[in-house]
Amino acid sequence: MDSLFAFGLGVSTLNRAGKVIDTFFPAPLHQVTGAVASQIQDRFTAGSQQVSPASVQAFIDQVQPELRPLLEADRDLTAVFLPKDSDIGSTSEAFLKLHLLSHRLRLPNTMNLDGIFGHLPNIAWTSRGAIDLTELASLQLEARVRGEYFEVHSVDKFPKMANYVVPTGVRIADTSRIRLGAYLGEGTTVMPSGAINFNAAALGPNMVEGRISQGVILGADTDLGGGASTMGTLSGGGNITISIGKQCLIGANGGTGIPLGDRCTIEAGLYITAGTRVTVVDETGETVRVVKARELAGHSDLLFIRHGSNGAIQCRTNRKAIALNEQLHDHN
Amino acid sequence: MDSLFAFGLGVSTLNRAGKVIDTFFPAPLHQVTGAVASQIQDRFTAGSQQVSPASVQAFIDQVQPELRPLLEADRDLTAVFLPKDSDIGSTSEAFLKLHLLSHRLRLPNTMNLDGIFGHLPNIAWTSRGAIDLTELASLQLEARVRGEYFEVHSVDKFPKMANYVVPTGVRIADTSRIRLGAYLGEGTTVMPSGAINFNAAALGPNMVEGRISQGVILGADTDLGGGASTMGTLSGGGNITISIGKQCLIGANGGTGIPLGDRCTIEAGLYITAGTRVTVVDETGETVRVVKARELAGHSDLLFIRHGSNGAIQCRTNRKAIALNEQLHDHN
Amino acid sequence: MDSLFAFGLGVSTLNRAGKVIDTFFPAPLHQVTGAVASQIQDRFTAGSQQVSPASVQAFIDQVQPELRPLLEADRDLTAVFLPKDSDIGSTSEAFLKLHLLSHRLRLPNTMNLDGIFGHLPNIAWTSRGAIDLTELASLQLEARVRGEYFEVHSVDKFPKMANYVVPTGVRIADTSRIRLGAYLGEGTTVMPSGAINFNAAALGPNMVEGRISQGVILGADTDLGGGASTMGTLSGGGNITISIGKQCLIGANGGTGIPLGDRCTIEAGLYITAGTRVTVVDETGETVRVVKARELAGHSDLLFIRHGSNGAIQCRTNRKAIALNEQLHDHN
Repeated sequence: MDSLFAFGLGVSTLNRAGKVIDTFFPAPLHQVTGAVASQIQDRFTAGSQQVSPASVQAFIDQVQPELRPLLEADRDLTAVFLPKDSDIGSTSEAFLKLHLLSHRLRLPNTMNLDGIFGHLPNIAWTSRGAIDLTELASLQLEARVRGEYFEVHSVDKFPKMANYVVPTGVRIADTSRIRLGAYLGEGTTVMPSGAINFNAAALGPNMVEGRISQGVILGADTDLGGGASTMGTLSGGGNITISIGKQCLIGANGGTGIPLGDRCTIEAGLYITAGTRVTVVDETGETVRVVKARELAGHSDLLFIRHGSNGAIQCRTNRKAIALNEQLHDHN
Repeated sequence: MDSLFAFGLGVSTLNRAGKVIDTFFPAPLHQVTGAVASQIQDRFTAGSQQVSPASVQAFIDQVQPELRPLLEADRDLTAVFLPKDSDIGSTSEAFLKLHLLSHRLRLPNTMNLDGIFGHLPNIAWTSRGAIDLTELASLQLEARVRGEYFEVHSVDKFPKMANYVVPTGVRIADTSRIRLGAYLGEGTTVMPSGAINFNAAALGPNMVEGRISQGVILGADTDLGGGASTMGTLSGGGNITISIGKQCLIGANGGTGIPLGDRCTIEAGLYITAGTRVTVVDETGETVRVVKARELAGHSDLLFIRHGSNGAIQCRTNRKAIALNEQLHDHN
Repeated sequence: MDSLFAFGLGVSTLNRAGKVIDTFFPAPLHQVTGAVASQIQDRFTAGSQQVSPASVQAFIDQVQPELRPLLEADRDLTAVFLPKDSDIGSTSEAFLKLHLLSHRLRLPNTMNLDGIFGHLPNIAWTSRGAIDLTELASLQLEARVRGEYFEVHSVDKFPKMANYVVPTGVRIADTSRIRLGAYLGEGTTVMPSGAINFNAAALGPNMVEGRISQGVILGADTDLGGGASTMGTLSGGGNITISIGKQCLIGANGGTGIPLGDRCTIEAGLYITAGTRVTVVDETGETVRVVKARELAGHSDLLFIRHGSNGAIQCRTNRKAIALNEQLHDHN
């Protein structure tokens, strides 16, 4: 038997009409095989389903005892069983896939997320939990009249990750900046100006003070400086998926619209886009050639600066990039 | 009879001394005429007033039945009746005008906001609602002693908009970045680094990942990239009110200190201020002239970049800006 | 008798294992002398200690009557007595030193903070208060099962300042961006993109729309524009401690990696690092010399821009900087 793609048993919030608007999966499963897979196939149908706690007691006892607290629920639970990584077909399925990313079970850009926007309703995320936007105004009014108060933290299709899972070994100064579906590896610190979208990753360890756009992956020991920007496919980067390798530094208020290899540096305040004209300079300071930045995409050991006297954007080779230089010289 | 400027019936928070420190208006009225105007004039005096629920029952039943939940209040309500758009004379009046903006009843820069800072006390906005700053420390101490806890979200004259109104068709990743008095049109999405001040607008649809300063208006289909900046009259822009037209793009970490027409682009990382020396280049790449950016204020179809090889800030014409170029050639 | 360094009596949060994970000190004392010092020395041992309310009743009555609400606590209180400014030896000691900064009793860079990272556990700061990270997931699950909800605001070693103290005369748009241990002087306004780390200061009055890194101090009447960056010793600035004098302006999306004197301006969008090549220009527009920016560190009356036509980073002298220019001419 092939492995099953994913399974999750959790708790949903329903709106007044009984529609699921959010699902919390405490312990999602991924790439399930063997006896566990058999149990899931025997007990659940593909897709999303509401199930009573009693009906899943045996499953929980035998397969996921860590979910025993779910048996105390006084309402139905939500089970999502995805035999394959198909298009997203329901709100709970979308939440399950987002959980897989934030639980570090799956890397960004490796899952089928088609249909995610259509199946995630826009929700008011409040101190009373998820509230359907059509119900919000009357609840706010009723609370005020009673002298009560609740806080609307966010109005978005995606909730903040930390209310669903806080992976081990991370620090997050302001959780409102990290959507469920972000992948934060061990050793990731996100400062107040850092932000990580869904389907985006800091593989860790990383210092993240800038924005990691949807689809972008940051390698180990790479720092994203304060306010630094990475272009995502949803935010100006077009079809190029940006990845940044290991031991890179994007300086404060800098940014990149091209993928970078390892040990690259972009100086503070400099933004490199795919079309930026870059003067490549070798170890002796001699100009090798002038290229569009996209031609340097993915190379390692590059240092990008804008010259203080003549305003030229230069790409200087860090140590060990001799091979690259020779290659560029060949094209001269 | 001329139309009455505005009317609102709502709920206030009082401090221990009985002073109003915040007013929530569920359904403010603007430019009121006819029978509704007569009812307001007959029943309310100009300015702010505390009224018992019973005393406004007939008004609510006849004029604003959507406010019936207010009749359940066990305290006085607040009514604000502003026959004209006069200087702000009370805290509740300030709140009413801010509501008019966020309810999309009034555009920025079209109201008299004189006196607003003086009539808005600095408040701790907490998970228990508005708290007078002089009362905060003792409440924090008492809560801790009882093993309780409340959160101070903001200390400001302006509260966050979303706790008062969430207009239709918007997404707001982090509501703490949008003050009451912001105008968010249908189709506005504000990402975690986006921010919109009071008396500022994204007319929608817009993608807002940067900062819209007080007084600034963003036209339809314009994107403000991550960390992008607009200079407000309170934040360095001087007397020039910045507006940005339709279908513009201010790239990530870019910014503008001049108004822009339609279909303008400022590349990522480039900041244009009024005094910036800009080289205008025509379709053939030929330099037309060098101007201060303020001379280009309000023009359409401009593309601003900083040249990668020589560091010059260039303004290239987008399609259709021939007329502008000719005009500039004439001045050559 | 020498003055005693610091003393605090407060309330701690304990994790399930009984370990202190946070301490709130309503009225910390600093540089204590005389009768108060004698009382502290007589009644408390050096370091951190849990004490019953009854055992400190006499002390509170005689020395700190403002702490009387603490006597209502149904649990032990925490006392920290630091005779000298020694290395940090416990979580409560770390919290006390952070309180000293935020209570304006001590300026940044004037205290021994050695050991602070080791003694501050990484904590989930939630709407239910501080929660040990090892306990978080099960509490989130239990809450959901009961149809309850709590918010994880931050996952960090440092909590947000405003939940411990809001000093007088400040405005903070989003408190999640200011850590306990920040020093905010009277008249400081922090906008949504502003952020102030622990052991960092805005001496006030200041408009802070950018990031003040650990160790950095902003002088009076200095504005840090939207998204502007200051390099800290923990964030790229190396060994140089950045201070910015009075009446400076760091423009939006600009930044500095060198200390600045008074009345300096960095134009919007320009980032000056220590190694930036800067062309110094005198009052007549003549080039004086080209220097690395670090040679200008700490000087006053400097205006930094990047020339719009030739891309050179220029340092122009503001008024009154003749002396500096002469000095630089001498080195010519």
